Amino acid sequence: MNNCKRCGAAAVIDVRRHRAAFCADCFQHHCREQVRRTIESHKMIARGERPLVAISGGKDSLAIWDILLDLGYDADGVYLGLGITDYSDTSRDFAERYAEQRGAKLHVVDLPTEHGFGIPDAAKATKRVPCSACGLSKRHLLNQAALDGGYDVLVTGHNLDDEAAVLFGNVLQWHTDYLARQRPVLPATDGFARRVKPLIRISERETAAYCVLKRIDYIVEECPMAAGNRHLRYKETLNDLEERSPGTKAVFYLQFLDKMLPLLESVAEEERQLVGTCTRCGAPSTAEVCAFCKLVERAAPEPISDSGR
Amino acid sequence: MNNCKRCGAAAVIDVRRHRAAFCADCFQHHCREQVRRTIESHKMIARGERPLVAISGGKDSLAIWDILLDLGYDADGVYLGLGITDYSDTSRDFAERYAEQRGAKLHVVDLPTEHGFGIPDAAKATKRVPCSACGLSKRHLLNQAALDGGYDVLVTGHNLDDEAAVLFGNVLQWHTDYLARQRPVLPATDGFARRVKPLIRISERETAAYCVLKRIDYIVEECPMAAGNRHLRYKETLNDLEERSPGTKAVFYLQFLDKMLPLLESVAEEERQLVGTCTRCGAPSTAEVCAFCKLVERAAPEPISDSGR
Repeated sequence: MNNCKRCGAAAVIDVRRHRAAFCADCFQHHCREQVRRTIESHKMIARGERPLVAISGGKDSLAIWDILLDLGYDADGVYLGLGITDYSDTSRDFAERYAEQRGAKLHVVDLPTEHGFGIPDAAKATKRVPCSACGLSKRHLLNQAALDGGYDVLVTGHNLDDEAAVLFGNVLQWHTDYLARQRPVLPATDGFARRVKPLIRISERETAAYCVLKRIDYIVEECPMAAGNRHLRYKETLNDLEERSPGTKAVFYLQFLDKMLPLLESVAEEERQLVGTCTRCGAPSTAEVCAFCKLVERAAPEPISDSGR
Repeated sequence: MNNCKRCGAAAVIDVRRHRAAFCADCFQHHCREQVRRTIESHKMIARGERPLVAISGGKDSLAIWDILLDLGYDADGVYLGLGITDYSDTSRDFAERYAEQRGAKLHVVDLPTEHGFGIPDAAKATKRVPCSACGLSKRHLLNQAALDGGYDVLVTGHNLDDEAAVLFGNVLQWHTDYLARQRPVLPATDGFARRVKPLIRISERETAAYCVLKRIDYIVEECPMAAGNRHLRYKETLNDLEERSPGTKAVFYLQFLDKMLPLLESVAEEERQLVGTCTRCGAPSTAEVCAFCKLVERAAPEPISDSGR
């Protein structure tokens, strides 16, 4: 291992794509600086705005919450219980423990309590992969939490590996509509809080190292429902490419933002024209009834009628 | 193995992405049909036009020459000797043998004879990977051969795997200029013959099977100078993805043509505006001196001056 790029002390971590190594303190500084610059260059959060951070109990969400607090943002967290039994209980513990230690405020929203079903039920009811119901529930309920709490912006912990893998999947099939939407900032619109991803310049190996060095305990296990899904396979493929040629992921994702998103603007505009309002819950939707309300209809137990039949 | 999709006889080859198996005769018919439809839908070659096929002595170029002759095109071939010693000699033998057996006309252009250097010399002189000098020499000299011979269109044997791998490399770095140019038909322009790729719907496993079933002998070895290059690595990556999910390559490449090329039209137009004429050889070029003339300058031995110094 080389010496720290910044202070010259013995390095504890190398970041191959930056051809740099850092000591523990300078690595944390490096992560904060990456986040600070990302927020600034993409105008993600203005000074004085109140961010709400989506907390899963994993390394990424706890790292971004920690960094935002260190950078002086008045950031609260929201934990969404997805009803994945033990896994959900454990990850909630990690989220609550961090909030307590740090003296930060954590909201808790529980899908089974509020809607009568968890992700395993939803997967069974829809006969689709659980990640599909999970993704749309998160989008809907986290947005709702941000709006209800009067927050200016919803922050998620998507890191460079996440974004590169999603991009990879969308590119393999050229889902131009999804590509046009894959932005580090989705501006607030009627019914949508602004959503931002300040970790796009940090890899998941780095958020893990950040948590270890800052002694933040997080749930290490992957979600049991995600095992073997495409997203994880694409991450493996990108890891292989990165191993042979460090920097591949960052170039792939960041050049997409610079060079391709402007070319996809017409597609994005078409998409925006299609967005209306869900007739049941009032959330933005391209259909008459939004995907979350449809999911509730299929996955939630039938309400017991007054007559008791 | 299942029965032939077309005639019900015992199948000898399956094409997983089409969920189909074929007997020997119906597989050849399938390949011809794929090529016929590709030529038709992309308006590659009009009836009565004279195509010149770039022949390397490998499976793809011999397969497309064979298919074009079977489809009734008056197609000649051109073999380009690249000075890769034994490999070039052997591949030229295969090209000449096919032409002789089939009674077809093969032109031969030899880079060392005409310009005084081969690809190994060019790689040394430019200190770059040999594939770079090879690609630009082929583009220049094959185009020249088509123009000199008065052919209407230059045909190359790029198959689905080739095109998908090139696309993959360009996408990983978002080379939007290369992406905008990656078309199955490049129309004729001042100084450029039309260039077409009628094998884009056929994989390299299928062109190999086609040659075996039609008893066409071809050079099986990969070019020794290409070993370990990026293009081959990208093919491996795509093969892994295809193995898990048959059809991945075809969707990736064909959806790119359908959905992305129209969005890249503005980039293509910008590129076209930049093309001028090489001041030395008159070929189209974006620089004052074209890349091939620069290569000749660096790689060819100094001419002996009149004074003998």
